[in-house]
Order: sequence, then structure tokens, then C-alpha cells
Amino acid sequence: MASHFADRLCQSVKSKSTPLMVGLDPVYARLPESIRSHREMNDEFDVAAAIDAILDFCTRTLRIVAPIVPAVKLNIAYFEKYLWEGVEAYYSIISEADELGLEVIGDVKRGDIGHTAKLYASAHLQNPEFTGLEDVIVPDAITINGFAGSEGIIPFADVANEQGKGVFVWIRASNPTAAAIQDFADADGKKMYEKLADITGEIADQNKRIGTSGYSNVGMVVGGTAPEETSLLRKRFARVWFLVPGFGSQGATAVDCMRFCNDDGMGALVNASRSIIYAYEKAQYKEQFADNWEKCIEQAAIDAKMELARAR
Amino acid sequence: MASHFADRLCQSVKSKSTPLMVGLDPVYARLPESIRSHREMNDEFDVAAAIDAILDFCTRTLRIVAPIVPAVKLNIAYFEKYLWEGVEAYYSIISEADELGLEVIGDVKRGDIGHTAKLYASAHLQNPEFTGLEDVIVPDAITINGFAGSEGIIPFADVANEQGKGVFVWIRASNPTAAAIQDFADADGKKMYEKLADITGEIADQNKRIGTSGYSNVGMVVGGTAPEETSLLRKRFARVWFLVPGFGSQGATAVDCMRFCNDDGMGALVNASRSIIYAYEKAQYKEQFADNWEKCIEQAAIDAKMELARAR
Repeated sequence: MASHFADRLCQSVKSKSTPLMVGLDPVYARLPESIRSHREMNDEFDVAAAIDAILDFCTRTLRIVAPIVPAVKLNIAYFEKYLWEGVEAYYSIISEADELGLEVIGDVKRGDIGHTAKLYASAHLQNPEFTGLEDVIVPDAITINGFAGSEGIIPFADVANEQGKGVFVWIRASNPTAAAIQDFADADGKKMYEKLADITGEIADQNKRIGTSGYSNVGMVVGGTAPEETSLLRKRFARVWFLVPGFGSQGATAVDCMRFCNDDGMGALVNASRSIIYAYEKAQYKEQFADNWEKCIEQAAIDAKMELARAR
Repeated sequence: MASHFADRLCQSVKSKSTPLMVGLDPVYARLPESIRSHREMNDEFDVAAAIDAILDFCTRTLRIVAPIVPAVKLNIAYFEKYLWEGVEAYYSIISEADELGLEVIGDVKRGDIGHTAKLYASAHLQNPEFTGLEDVIVPDAITINGFAGSEGIIPFADVANEQGKGVFVWIRASNPTAAAIQDFADADGKKMYEKLADITGEIADQNKRIGTSGYSNVGMVVGGTAPEETSLLRKRFARVWFLVPGFGSQGATAVDCMRFCNDDGMGALVNASRSIIYAYEKAQYKEQFADNWEKCIEQAAIDAKMELARAR
């Protein structure tokens, strides 16, 4: 396996012929009845049973999607809900995904300055050397928050370099009120998120961060921009991987998302979470597969993959 | 005890007659020799021994500073270094601090949108109802990242309201490169961090968030602004508590920090971390107290408190 994150990602996206990434946002109350019902628990407040159900669901979902997609994204907030017990489960699922050959993105949005940034970077991107934790596998890449500027990004990028890992800097969010901050514009009309993209792009373009694939291990999380802005970002940062959230449930169309791909089909990871992992809640899949929730997820992943392929 | 975070904070600051907050940033390699040496471990990679030492150090430090200061801040990055084992230790130290009557700020800088923001908020600000975790105490307030605008702040502020807790939105960082993003200015010279402060201030000023003390449970983390900017922020957001990092090791003077106080002496929490908890590394305290590291910490906390009092 290639030791550079962007090279591994290129290989995986090529081998699965899709930029589709499945996001694991497990909510206990939404898990399939069959996953929940055979556990002896009174309610969702039994932490051991809830985590057991989540582990079961995530592991089986990983096995379903591993032949279809190159990567999965784990949103750590869904695990921090269960405090340290949840964090242990988060790492357990990463190990499972890693064994299945999937690239794993830890959606942790960490961000701080100085020594704190270095600590977060090594905690989240370096397999621990501690006695007792030596079997833990950390994600292939994480999302970070670049609010503190280059000093808040470089510590993460440097650990990523040392460890063959990657980072995706959160540049633009898709929610309506994000614009108040992220589209805040200077006298020339340049927006704050473009400034943050410039800072990130400069770090990403450093030779030491570029793999043999020509791509950088420093990427960007970008959702909710207008089509012309997407095209500008794509052209301006040709060697950057974009992590594009919001395909499916959050309303971004396949065409919107595929604009983030370069001509070679590389450079974008398009994330769909709820529209795939909760496919068994949708009438179209329920009718087809009844209570077979695994078939529903499989079909939803295949459908999403086809939709992206058609949009290319 | 008052059920509104800002009211509790006012009471605590009044009763200890200081806005000084001690930050716990425990680094194993810097702990006192006597804390480390009696543990049977070969090196700092023995996670159980390292956490045991950190728990011992933090607990004893809390007992030393509890009579002197109103609040402590725990930086979760220092605990995430030890993955879930560290997160468990983080909550254990919060419980200790709570029992000692200290206000506890969890410096977690979480930030995201929508359902993820709600999950982070309840994970970090709501005592869990889970069987097996029901004794866990969460912090009195946490720091958050407001990069996603009001939709990224309100979910945290609303949980804080329900739970009698508080949030501090990270507005301005003290590191040099933060300026590239945070001082990014529009055509009128308004800076991005001022815009973020406006958005945060509007949320903070909502009646439901104001306690009987007249202060809001939504505060701001502000470091590294010029004196005239500090005065403007203080005047503009009269009912906001400012969390001011960087006193001591990071170079902010007592006068700089005390500018964040209102005339009533309320409205600022001034954080000192390394300059107090690692006081035993400094010649001035070593000479006075030899190997008695606890005396060094106590004296450093008293000295810092006096310095702030003189600066007022």
C-alpha cells in the first residue's frame, strides 16, 4: 500500500471507479429494529447495549459498502455522545474499516493553536505507541478547522506528512448562516473562505506534501458554494482533494458535487451519509427489499454511485 | 448553587476576589519527578501509569488552587492524546474540580453544523443519563468554534440554557497567523472577528440567556487584540464574559488582561496555565521551596492573583 495518503486515495477511487464516500453517523434510535430488538435493554440509555448495537450496525454496513466505495467517513460527534465508551467504539470501527481496505476519514473538525494543535494532530493521526493501546488504528485522514490560520493547519499537515496521513481543512460549510462568516468579503470582493482556501492551498502545494499521484495530502472540505465558485476552486487548487459533504440528504445534486472532480476523475470525495445508511427508512427501498435493511443500504450505495457516474 | 452559569461565575469570582483561572494542560514528561518516579513504568508510553500520574498531579493541583481561584480550565487535547483512556481521565478530573466547588471550563473548541452541533452540545454540556455513566459530571461551560455562524453557536447555547451551563465562542486567537483570517477586513475596515463577535453578541444578549447577575451564559474567548480593541469589545458586549487566554507564559500582561473586566470587576476570566502548573520548573520558586512542587504551584497562583489585583 502506498505510504502517501493522496496516492492511496487515488488508487482506491480508481479501483472502485467512484468518488462516493459513505458517512457513518449512527443514531441508536434509527438503527434497524432487528439490530436493536435482540439486545436485552430497556431503553436507549443503556450505554453498553447502545454501543454494541452501533458496533454491529457499523461493522455490517462497512462490509456491505466496502466492495462499492473507496472510503468511509466517521463523524466522531456521534460517538462522543457516549463519552469515552463511544470514543473506544469509534476506534474499533476504524480498525474494521481499515481491515476491509477502505480509506477512513475521521470527521473530527479539531482546531487550535500551538502545542494544543500538535497534541490534537498526534492524537488523531498517529497510531499510538502506548502499551495497552498499540493495536489502535487511527484514520487515514481527519477534518480540521483552520480558524487560527496557518499555525493552526501546519501542525496537523506535518504530522500527516510523517505518518502517511491526510488532513481536510474545513473551508466552506453548506448551512445558510455560514455565509455571514465565510462569505465575509474584503474591499475587493474576496471572501473570507477564499482567503482561508489560499492559506490552505499554499500549504497543500508545498512539494513535500505532494505524492507521486500529483495530489497533496492537504485537502479541503467544501460544501454549499455556487457552481461558478466550485469551478474556480477546482482550477485554482488543481492538486487538492476536496471533501464534498451534503450529497443526498443535505440537498447537493450529483452534478454540483461532480464539479469538484478534475478531468482525470480524481480530486473529489463526495460524501453521502443518511441517504445511504438509513436507506431502509425510504419507501422505495422498503417496497423492494422489505425488512432486509442490508440490501436497502447496498442498493442505495449502488444507486448513489450510478447517479454520480451519470453526472460526470 | 445558582442554576445559571453566569450567576455561579459571578458568585465564584466575587468569593475568591479574582478573575484568575488556572488551566490544566498536563504533559507527562513535565510532571514533578516525585509524581513520576514512584510509578512502576519503563517510559512515558505506559498509558495506565501515565494517566495515573496525570490524575494524581491534577487532583493535587486542584486541591491547592481551589481556595485561591474561582475556576479551572481543562484542555481536552492533553487528554485525547491518550484516546478514550484519556477522555475518561478528563471526566474524572472534572468531577474532582466540581466537588471542590470550582467552576470548570472544558476547553474543547468543538464546532460543526446542524445535527452534529447538537450532538457535540449534549455530549459536552449535559450530564449523561446512560446506565453506567450516570455519575459523570460535565463541565460548567465549554469553548466552541463559531466558524459556521449562528447555526453553529445556537445549538450549544440552547443546551447550555437547558442545563444551566455556558459556552465561550472562540472569537480571536493570540497566535500571529490568526490575523490573516480573523483580522480579514471588509470595505469599511470591519474585521471578521468583529463580525463573529457581533453574531455571538446578538445570541448572548437574548433575554433568556441573561441571568439575575445581568450576565449571559454565552461568552467569548478573546486573546491577542490591541488595547483599544479590547476596550471596544468590553463596551460593546457589556453582559458577556470574556475568557482571556495567554496570561503568563503566552505573554499577555496583567494590564492587558484586566482591560476585559467591567467596572464591577466581573466579566473576565483570565487564564494562566503553564506559568502556574509548572511553577516548580522556575528558578524563583525552586530556590524558595526546593522540591516542594505543591508549594511552588500555590505561590505561583497567589502571585498571579496579586499581579492581576494590582493591575486593576
